[in-house]
Amino acid sequence: MNEPLQERKTVFATPWFQVLAAPAPDGGQPHYVIQGADFVVIVAVTERGQMLLVRQFRVAAAALTLELPAGHVELGETPEQAARRELLEETGYEADTVKLLGGLSPSVARFTNRMWCFLATKARPATGAETRREAGVDLILYERGVRALIEEKEFYSAPSCAALMLATLRGGLKT
Amino acid sequence: MNEPLQERKTVFATPWFQVLAAPAPDGGQPHYVIQGADFVVIVAVTERGQMLLVRQFRVAAAALTLELPAGHVELGETPEQAARRELLEETGYEADTVKLLGGLSPSVARFTNRMWCFLATKARPATGAETRREAGVDLILYERGVRALIEEKEFYSAPSCAALMLATLRGGLKT
Repeated sequence: MNEPLQERKTVFATPWFQVLAAPAPDGGQPHYVIQGADFVVIVAVTERGQMLLVRQFRVAAAALTLELPAGHVELGETPEQAARRELLEETGYEADTVKLLGGLSPSVARFTNRMWCFLATKARPATGAETRREAGVDLILYERGVRALIEEKEFYSAPSCAALMLATLRGGLKT
Repeated sequence: MNEPLQERKTVFATPWFQVLAAPAPDGGQPHYVIQGADFVVIVAVTERGQMLLVRQFRVAAAALTLELPAGHVELGETPEQAARRELLEETGYEADTVKLLGGLSPSVARFTNRMWCFLATKARPATGAETRREAGVDLILYERGVRALIEEKEFYSAPSCAALMLATLRGGLKT
């Protein structure tokens, strides 16, 4: 069943992703895939059970969205290091325990990268964090629980929903 | 907070998606987003509680993957029509009730399209369906339940996980 991997050629590049063409075995239209850095998505919960969310304007969605904290894994970082850094940059929070829930594909049909999902428990404000937080990203301490969260109109990110699924079934997060 | 939408220009096109550039308000690097057709993801369960899965080779993931049935919404189709068509083409099954669970963004940071998640209950083989099924896609009747499914090595599609989350919390699917 496994087809041999054909050589892939970069046919378009941006600073954030590249479009690669894989020649079709039958000489037809090449298969186009998108290559970018891996990213992390973090389900972070405080000791009081609040979930850390970020609200920001997203150009692709052309809207304000409510999401779990997330971001790219930088060169030289492990996914866990990226999760801790993004959590701090986007929310100003830190946690002793940041546990890997699993690695998923954001799109097996189109993206070659992976998204690494983490569960951070007993998250707490880091000292001096307010001055370090990213501009344009609002922090929301969400208290209504997972079941209410997926009904929020601004919460429609599939990667966020997928990470919540892993946190629920693998991490023991209550719905 | 909402920035005005800038004009977007197609800078690269394939038969399946286009890369658009949105000029940055400050004149810096444009923001690149990817435009493609909407797609559907279907959580389909038989009367006996088996979940319909598809196994296929995916070029982007460079691997055999296990996923929920899914596919693009064609021109002139409603998402529900696309869900019924894809379910039939990929699995040979049909269902009287195909209920919309919700619309998610596959990537609020990069994709402009939507994925529409459906729950099909009491799915059953369609008459003469075996002859119509897509080549290269294997049907799996999964009996072990959602909790076991997310532990399967080949099941790592974030859109599939996100659709299962909606099916669980909105559709009453048991984990």
